[in-house]
Amino acid sequence: MEKLNLTQIETLLKNLDGWIYENGSISKSYVFKDFKETFSVMTRIAFEAEQQNHHPLWENVYNQLTIKLNTHDVGGITQNDFDLAKRIENIVNKK
Amino acid sequence: MEKLNLTQIETLLKNLDGWIYENGSISKSYVFKDFKETFSVMTRIAFEAEQQNHHPLWENVYNQLTIKLNTHDVGGITQNDFDLAKRIENIVNKK
Repeated sequence: MEKLNLTQIETLLKNLDGWIYENGSISKSYVFKDFKETFSVMTRIAFEAEQQNHHPLWENVYNQLTIKLNTHDVGGITQNDFDLAKRIENIVNKK
Repeated sequence: MEKLNLTQIETLLKNLDGWIYENGSISKSYVFKDFKETFSVMTRIAFEAEQQNHHPLWENVYNQLTIKLNTHDVGGITQNDFDLAKRIENIVNKK
């Protein structure tokens, strides 16, 4: 997987809804109804991440979830991060 | 639930394995085998937290999990935090 440059990252971010690039990750924060809804979404993301063998850095408290994606092996962002971000969006939109 | 003072917190921490008090939370970091094991533990903790209606602030990436507990309503630590910490220890020890 090739490390993307800033121009590539900014172009690909346009295909996502509200994700930002900062501190070497693409990230998004979500607020859901309650903990059950939040952890249900996290569980669906967890299965997807495991299947892709590409795992998020994420932080949760109650109904708040912040997800940060990068590719440790290249020290930056790759297409894998954007693929997982898109899958996360699909999961959230289907809930 | 009564907010605990520092002496009470330090006494109760002795009943836990490696938890520390810092920045207004009691916290512990775990490293597991892989993501599947980590998220399995998180799922068991999630059910426990939901049942107690007391939820952790937690951060995960791959096999690393950091858990921080406090009681928002009192702006500090209560017995609820120590109860959940003990349940988390039991879950981790049973995995």
